[in-house]
Amino acid sequence: MSTNQKEIEIQFLDYVKKIGAYNEALALIYWDLRTGAPKKGVDQRTEVIGVLSSELFALSTSTELESYLSILSEENIQKELSPITRKTVEEMKKDFDRNKKIPAQEHKEYVMLQSKAESVWEEAKEKADFALFQPYLEKLVEMNKRFIEYWGYKDNKYDVLLDMYEPGMTVSILDEVFSNVREKIVPLVHKIAESTNKPSTDFLYEPFSKENQEAFSLKVLQQVGYDFDAGRLDQTVHPFATGINPGDVRITTKYDESDFRVAVFGTIHEVGHALYEQNISKELVGTPLCSGTSMGIHESQSLFYENFVGRNLSFWRHNYETLKSYTNGQFDQVPVEEFYRAINESKPSLIRIEADELTYPLHIMIRYEIEKGLFDGDIEVKDLPKIWNEKYKSYLGVVPKNDGEGVLQDVHWAGGSFGYFPSYALGYMYAAQLKQIMLKDIPNFDELLEQGKLLPIKEWLNEKIHYYGKTKKPLEILKDVTGEGLNAQYLIDYLYKKYSDVYQLEQ
Amino acid sequence: MSTNQKEIEIQFLDYVKKIGAYNEALALIYWDLRTGAPKKGVDQRTEVIGVLSSELFALSTSTELESYLSILSEENIQKELSPITRKTVEEMKKDFDRNKKIPAQEHKEYVMLQSKAESVWEEAKEKADFALFQPYLEKLVEMNKRFIEYWGYKDNKYDVLLDMYEPGMTVSILDEVFSNVREKIVPLVHKIAESTNKPSTDFLYEPFSKENQEAFSLKVLQQVGYDFDAGRLDQTVHPFATGINPGDVRITTKYDESDFRVAVFGTIHEVGHALYEQNISKELVGTPLCSGTSMGIHESQSLFYENFVGRNLSFWRHNYETLKSYTNGQFDQVPVEEFYRAINESKPSLIRIEADELTYPLHIMIRYEIEKGLFDGDIEVKDLPKIWNEKYKSYLGVVPKNDGEGVLQDVHWAGGSFGYFPSYALGYMYAAQLKQIMLKDIPNFDELLEQGKLLPIKEWLNEKIHYYGKTKKPLEILKDVTGEGLNAQYLIDYLYKKYSDVYQLEQ
Repeated sequence: MSTNQKEIEIQFLDYVKKIGAYNEALALIYWDLRTGAPKKGVDQRTEVIGVLSSELFALSTSTELESYLSILSEENIQKELSPITRKTVEEMKKDFDRNKKIPAQEHKEYVMLQSKAESVWEEAKEKADFALFQPYLEKLVEMNKRFIEYWGYKDNKYDVLLDMYEPGMTVSILDEVFSNVREKIVPLVHKIAESTNKPSTDFLYEPFSKENQEAFSLKVLQQVGYDFDAGRLDQTVHPFATGINPGDVRITTKYDESDFRVAVFGTIHEVGHALYEQNISKELVGTPLCSGTSMGIHESQSLFYENFVGRNLSFWRHNYETLKSYTNGQFDQVPVEEFYRAINESKPSLIRIEADELTYPLHIMIRYEIEKGLFDGDIEVKDLPKIWNEKYKSYLGVVPKNDGEGVLQDVHWAGGSFGYFPSYALGYMYAAQLKQIMLKDIPNFDELLEQGKLLPIKEWLNEKIHYYGKTKKPLEILKDVTGEGLNAQYLIDYLYKKYSDVYQLEQ
Repeated sequence: MSTNQKEIEIQFLDYVKKIGAYNEALALIYWDLRTGAPKKGVDQRTEVIGVLSSELFALSTSTELESYLSILSEENIQKELSPITRKTVEEMKKDFDRNKKIPAQEHKEYVMLQSKAESVWEEAKEKADFALFQPYLEKLVEMNKRFIEYWGYKDNKYDVLLDMYEPGMTVSILDEVFSNVREKIVPLVHKIAESTNKPSTDFLYEPFSKENQEAFSLKVLQQVGYDFDAGRLDQTVHPFATGINPGDVRITTKYDESDFRVAVFGTIHEVGHALYEQNISKELVGTPLCSGTSMGIHESQSLFYENFVGRNLSFWRHNYETLKSYTNGQFDQVPVEEFYRAINESKPSLIRIEADELTYPLHIMIRYEIEKGLFDGDIEVKDLPKIWNEKYKSYLGVVPKNDGEGVLQDVHWAGGSFGYFPSYALGYMYAAQLKQIMLKDIPNFDELLEQGKLLPIKEWLNEKIHYYGKTKKPLEILKDVTGEGLNAQYLIDYLYKKYSDVYQLEQ
């Protein structure tokens, strides 16, 4: 590479760092807005977000960036770049092309539509009035269809949207795995509904102070290996994790004093995300590669901790006495096995975010089928409430009383996030698949949980997944770690084994 | 004004708003760094500060801004501008001229140095290890000296720094005022040292939990009229207040479980600053006029609340029972008059922020003389611990056990704030002068305190001072409100009266 080319590479990396700095500042502002920013300052803070976001958009679509990307993508130059720079160029180019192909006027219109749609959705949900939201959703779908035309697509328009959240994911892959999962899970859900061995759960709902829940949550965070010198735990209405930079990955949780599970499993879920972001290679800091590789892989980490660790009997064999010591005695008469069955109760329900492990994937499939239909043209927005309710009846045997607890329950579509939902189900499948492979290296997984020794598990995930950030694509990680592509059988086997155990079913 | 000129005014105000947005983002980042940002994220956050500050610096020194300022400063155009735009142009022009003289690269280096130095200082203070901090302080002094050369100066380099915090203030004025105050105060300090009527203070140091101190502090904040919808209270090593915008003005305090005064008077001090920032006219939001007019006037507000309200017998006649209710009974045998004498004990001490009203100005004078020496070239950074200790010995008769409670106690120098300290002493003088004038409008001042009715006091300060933000210069405010210039006699009279009373001296 000539000196001049080397200089261009350095300038490009500086430019990328600058973009990273704006993203980091915005991430901190959003964290602050959700954790305790005084309400009278919010309007002015929104102006600040506007200024920084505009600048970020300008940086991401500038002719300066275009020129770096064009030079550094030339074949003879590209091959001489460091692997990190090469991947950075690819990642930036993908974003640049995506942004650049949409006319500025339409981009602006879309941003305004999103913001308006979100506030209309909030009202529509509260009033359970789909008609209010319908024209906005129609417009959002229509504009996304137009964008897909600008971007171009191969087989299926919806693939373009899936790819935004899960690079490489397609309708043809999902159709196959989802129909497989559905075919196997629906009978299990029915079996459980008819089970005569349902767990008792009354004892779960005793008063449990916020302070004590927090103290217990902090112990769990310590146990799983969350680095408090690179993070902190706060309280919010909806739990989340945010990787501001790998040395600053914050978790929030929500406390419900009459159901400790909200905070405890919320915290364990979020720390799965946080462990990912805290352990990305420091070499990637300041590049767009310094984050989780996809929503699905990210979700696999949070679900791994929530379900494979947090809802595991061995985990509670170690932690149950500690948990008890923080309560007013609500579990004193409950053996740990009964506690384990209670926290794994499965019951068809209407609300996705309150669903258990077993029924959750069905909530996702309903949304997936609807989204696919919307972009195929098989489904029209006006028919959504009817279709939604039919699918809930058929998959889960429950019907929403109104659209507020039905088709209007999630914010995603109001924000224009089509193609996002499948990530949640993919996360489950990835997690189950990874767990099986992990057992080859860590055959004493349950024993470690029972001893409270969780660090080898974290280190395995660090080494196999976290470290790489976005330098590997999701299916590449899966292939490298498990030796195969997406395979839903692992999840199915896991759910059968677990729920046969919890519900003492005959197999 | 022509349509074209009107358009330029609008563009200019948009431009100024953008600068405001960067300042606001940075203010939030600084608040976060001091209130609980995970330490492993600090280096990367410093990069973010560097990027945003560079952009801010570029915006503040651009040819675009230069052109706005040059057009809007033309006499025939200027006179047609709104008063706010006119003052904004003046303020921006002053900053523009100052910034333009520093090379961009040096500015960036300086901002990153400040941020790094603050976190090193924190560690150095905790470890009482001056050597750790010394190279950073040396660099900060050196860079400030270089900047002064860029800016140019008349009689004294240090004047340039003083003027940044208190426009118009000079070494020659301060040398005179300080020697006058010192001349009057030192004999009073001696009289008190020889007094046979010293207050008892043992009862102050009983264990008082952080949680209860916090609860009491929150009650006091409510009483003085702090708006919690436009602020919040956090805990830090060194208390501060920060006006991120007028709807988001945050306070921090420090808790010492064996001396409740640290938190209580710390909070009352900071809320004086916060009330100023919360009550600036909303018309000034988004302009550089939307902050306190000078450090001295700012400090007059915090010291007004700390001393004229918080250390007033009438204030405690109202609040003493509440305070008692949060303790383990430490004041049960102590009449309020004895409590009042105790919290006004005057005794030479080591820590500035814990010093009493009477000896406080001596702490300031030590810092003033050191800063003056550093910029004259009479003092070198490496000698600071020795010089510091000698001056404390000579002025106050006390010597720090280590540098943590000596030369490392204040954050100011770590932030590059040289010339700031004298503002505290000016604040005392302004506060005493304002209090005398306030009594003409609010002759029942003490009665209101005794009834816990503090809002009329806040409203008087809102109307006379806060509302104007930076649209009036410090001496203009003083003149408008009191009818005269700076007059140290008010402070001297006040201190004589108060301490004669507390120590029952013969006058």
